[in-house]
Amino acid sequence: MLTLYSYWRSSASYRVRIALALKDIDYNQVQVSLVDGGQDEPDYRALNPQGFLPALKLSDGTVLTQSIPIIEYLEEADPAPLRLLPDDATDRARARAFAAVIACDIHPIQNVSVLKYLRAEFGQDDDGVKAWCRHWIERGFEALEPMASVRTSTFVLGDAPGLPEICLIPQVYNARRFGVDMDRYPALRDIDAACVSTAAFEAAAPEHQPDAPQP
Amino acid sequence: MLTLYSYWRSSASYRVRIALALKDIDYNQVQVSLVDGGQDEPDYRALNPQGFLPALKLSDGTVLTQSIPIIEYLEEADPAPLRLLPDDATDRARARAFAAVIACDIHPIQNVSVLKYLRAEFGQDDDGVKAWCRHWIERGFEALEPMASVRTSTFVLGDAPGLPEICLIPQVYNARRFGVDMDRYPALRDIDAACVSTAAFEAAAPEHQPDAPQP
Repeated sequence: MLTLYSYWRSSASYRVRIALALKDIDYNQVQVSLVDGGQDEPDYRALNPQGFLPALKLSDGTVLTQSIPIIEYLEEADPAPLRLLPDDATDRARARAFAAVIACDIHPIQNVSVLKYLRAEFGQDDDGVKAWCRHWIERGFEALEPMASVRTSTFVLGDAPGLPEICLIPQVYNARRFGVDMDRYPALRDIDAACVSTAAFEAAAPEHQPDAPQP
Repeated sequence: MLTLYSYWRSSASYRVRIALALKDIDYNQVQVSLVDGGQDEPDYRALNPQGFLPALKLSDGTVLTQSIPIIEYLEEADPAPLRLLPDDATDRARARAFAAVIACDIHPIQNVSVLKYLRAEFGQDDDGVKAWCRHWIERGFEALEPMASVRTSTFVLGDAPGLPEICLIPQVYNARRFGVDMDRYPALRDIDAACVSTAAFEAAAPEHQPDAPQP
């Protein structure tokens, strides 16, 4: 069985949880607490020297890292249950580009280690850090909104959620935490609304993970 | 024929130039100057609303954006001339993860717009900006060095350069600009040395582009 090293609020872990749920793949979950420094523990560093989440251990012990490569692997290993990428080559490129705006140009700029640097080296307080996060989320969403507006169905590309939604929904979750007004991005807001209440996205949601704070 | 919108010193453009050269694909090049704000001109924004480089226009007028998705497209369109990804599924995941450390966790944190924010909002001068860039390059290279050290040939995976080298060599070029000591990363240094003097990497190099300053 697969083992996912995950943290309830890690956006990249959340992506892989959605992909696994959409593919209906069973897996064990090992929680690595980003607030308690679990990512810096020797045991985890031995698995993933970068110390980032998530990591996916295959049944033969091979460890895969980085969320998009893990999702591409899951898609290549078994495209059948639900395709995460479209068939058409240019549509595949569009789906990957939509995902890359989030995975490259929004999310890493708000990595825990980046925010620590802002506090330690630039003397930023909570307000400065939140303004930074909001700025890059809004810049990214301004790029994504026109990409999503041209869609011809409920989802970014095609009739079912796939790689674009796998990246978008965790980023919208983060955006709301930082006070971004989603009504400025109606296409993104509507795609999010169409996804979050479905079974796969519910199962992957931060608040439904075993390490989430209990209400 | 393909048209690449590129800037000589843009690291993401450099990646796509290498991929096109490795695949031996002819293309037109349109220069978009990142220092003169070409990426914010209405003509370019009409092609790529995000205003980032590169963009690749296909012969039917379709415009693709984001370097890794463009490279995945080139690979899917014609895997024959030189494979940019290995055959084995877990090796493909490893190649993509190596690339993602650069394309997600190093490069976007030094995007032109991020460095502008550091100057404008956090009052950083040249030294502060350079220290920031060096820090994230070194953090990323510390993650990549063990991934590269386990290689069994000259290159990260397999007997020829592919996606990992396409991302690594432009990042090493940037690292040297920011004063990173490559001798701290002997595996990365050696892979870079094996690539840079080959015809494909030479053709793609910043200093050989039409918009590079003449010596």
